[in-house]
Amino acid sequence: MWPTPAGLPGLLTPDAQLNRISEQLADHFTGIFAPETVDRYVFETYTALGRSAKISAHLTNLTGRFAKDRLIALAQAKGAIAKTVPEVLFVCTHNAGRSQIAAALLNEKAAGKVHVRSAGSAPAEEIDPNVRAALDEVGIDLSEAFPKPLTDDVVRAADVVITMGCGDACPIYPGKRYEDWVITDPSGSDLATAREVRDDIDARVEALLDQLGVTGR
Amino acid sequence: MWPTPAGLPGLLTPDAQLNRISEQLADHFTGIFAPETVDRYVFETYTALGRSAKISAHLTNLTGRFAKDRLIALAQAKGAIAKTVPEVLFVCTHNAGRSQIAAALLNEKAAGKVHVRSAGSAPAEEIDPNVRAALDEVGIDLSEAFPKPLTDDVVRAADVVITMGCGDACPIYPGKRYEDWVITDPSGSDLATAREVRDDIDARVEALLDQLGVTGR
Repeated sequence: MWPTPAGLPGLLTPDAQLNRISEQLADHFTGIFAPETVDRYVFETYTALGRSAKISAHLTNLTGRFAKDRLIALAQAKGAIAKTVPEVLFVCTHNAGRSQIAAALLNEKAAGKVHVRSAGSAPAEEIDPNVRAALDEVGIDLSEAFPKPLTDDVVRAADVVITMGCGDACPIYPGKRYEDWVITDPSGSDLATAREVRDDIDARVEALLDQLGVTGR
Repeated sequence: MWPTPAGLPGLLTPDAQLNRISEQLADHFTGIFAPETVDRYVFETYTALGRSAKISAHLTNLTGRFAKDRLIALAQAKGAIAKTVPEVLFVCTHNAGRSQIAAALLNEKAAGKVHVRSAGSAPAEEIDPNVRAALDEVGIDLSEAFPKPLTDDVVRAADVVITMGCGDACPIYPGKRYEDWVITDPSGSDLATAREVRDDIDARVEALLDQLGVTGR
């Protein structure tokens, strides 16, 4: 009467892999977070990425990376891990174009003197292929990047939050600098548009480095 | 040089209200969850709802309700709160039409003999107005309902998971019954379509009650 899960479109049971990731991260964050907190981060991160990501054998790997980064952000926000450089968060709608470009360019130019994260209010399945190509042209490889939903932890860790087309979606917390950049959304557009957006963001990222008092590359 | 948060579109600082909700829920779940876990649930729920919900003075209230329900689901999954009736979860794309209709009809017909939740893989800003109207016609008031993202906790608490157009987005865990219903998405359509979808779902919900061995209204 009931179909078996195997007969449905859907992910294979991820429990064993996720439990292993959870145990590893609980070890890593011993003394900072309870295992219960780490476990929730891992499983909720998996479900959050699964809502929008393409079904992929890599989903548990991405879960491990993103859950770890979220826990680092939360530990920074709590003061349990020291922030040694300014933390900048870029937020756009899909985390597939503008915020990925901004994060990649700032990361490249700051050469370790700024730490950068990005997120989206409605993350896309994957990074826009023209955006990948436009960054590839300037020597930046996005092959390890993927769209991520906006989470509370990364906002809390940030010193500077830059929104692009999604200002409403981002919680406003005291003690942070917020800026809104009005930039064309390149999603679904062509390579020429992606290049224009890249160059527009490039100039803004240079100005941001100046504002942060960072001498980049 | 930096604009103040007040000059940006966005939410007012929600910290004080969210901390109060967090303290109340930590009290409520004493002995079941650590305050740290409850705090994370409250703040991540707020950010998750803020990604898609209309900006609203009610967002912190909705956060309190949804965070509490998620914690109840997690406590059920852990066995810390007993499940006295079958738990059914409906998942569609926007949690604005199909899954809301199914949840409302099953809740109504089961008269307490089933507990029902619903969620969406990409929750909409608000419930479809024609869906509200079509349910209003059969005496069901959706004024307290709102679109919610799919979370790990509600999947874990469920005995039966019914997906409608989003099978890929829902983690498959062992020990649950999964079913996929192929139903027209009424979002952005007219009242006649919403009525058809309501009646299609109504017949399926009746069959589901039979399968569950529940004598409804």
